[in-house]
Amino acid sequence: MTNPNQAGAKEPLFLDDLQVGQRFASGSHRIDEEQILAFARQFDPQPFHLDAGAARHSLFQGLVASGWHTVAITMRLLVEGGLPIAGGLIGAGAEITWPNPTRPGDVLQVESEVVELRPSRSRPDRGIATIRSETRNQRGETLQVLVARLVVPRSATSTGAGPAA
Amino acid sequence: MTNPNQAGAKEPLFLDDLQVGQRFASGSHRIDEEQILAFARQFDPQPFHLDAGAARHSLFQGLVASGWHTVAITMRLLVEGGLPIAGGLIGAGAEITWPNPTRPGDVLQVESEVVELRPSRSRPDRGIATIRSETRNQRGETLQVLVARLVVPRSATSTGAGPAA
Repeated sequence: MTNPNQAGAKEPLFLDDLQVGQRFASGSHRIDEEQILAFARQFDPQPFHLDAGAARHSLFQGLVASGWHTVAITMRLLVEGGLPIAGGLIGAGAEITWPNPTRPGDVLQVESEVVELRPSRSRPDRGIATIRSETRNQRGETLQVLVARLVVPRSATSTGAGPAA
Repeated sequence: MTNPNQAGAKEPLFLDDLQVGQRFASGSHRIDEEQILAFARQFDPQPFHLDAGAARHSLFQGLVASGWHTVAITMRLLVEGGLPIAGGLIGAGAEITWPNPTRPGDVLQVESEVVELRPSRSRPDRGIATIRSETRNQRGETLQVLVARLVVPRSATSTGAGPAA
């Protein structure tokens, strides 16, 4: 039932163009200690994200990125062609797990799969696409699994205007 | 069954100190257009996060923050005393919904409630606390609901060392 990998397909897709099982691959991003510290200072100032020495004595036994940093980089990779959805990537909600921490030097890449498509009952011009995005590093270790519910216009003739579904 | 609001309590709490129904309140953070644009340029470069003019014609009918920016600010507010958990805030996973978008000028504040406590079967020194954190603006509108599963040491005598549970 799965479709061929759509990596490289960049024309934006509407809800009616998507199929369950369809897959997309993103570009990649290398994270380094400087990026980890900068994000942590701004949004998640905890010792295991801020200080390699303190991090060695933590649960993680070394410096790790904030999980919210991993998700932010994942979003960037999806927006930059990793998930070519018409109207942009507008999330109604998401579930996230972090099976392994992101560490300095990791090269992140995202593979996404369409898992459910549900036209809106109240708004015929749109629907919800549920997309499972797995962020892995260069050793193929899964750092994050993000299952997001996106608001997607049905077709090119849909307006997509008005408040969220 | 709910306990008094614990706002201001800042001594870090271990799993054995927490109770279902216990509540915590964070400080506040005012988000402005400049912050929204800076985050979007780095992590979520979509027109409705980057350009007030383009945003007027989007689903949101005006500039809105990336949902990942709302969650990052929420994390900052939790780390800075909004959720005083011993050993830090270490997430195993989370569920997020964004009932309303975050807009320039919104003042974000987070209220958290302990919803489940589960000692680890394999590791007697720790457990999982499930915490529901609601981020609201100055008008009391709910911008985000974050339900996070946190790894928490059982008591002050727990080491908290070793790989994640």
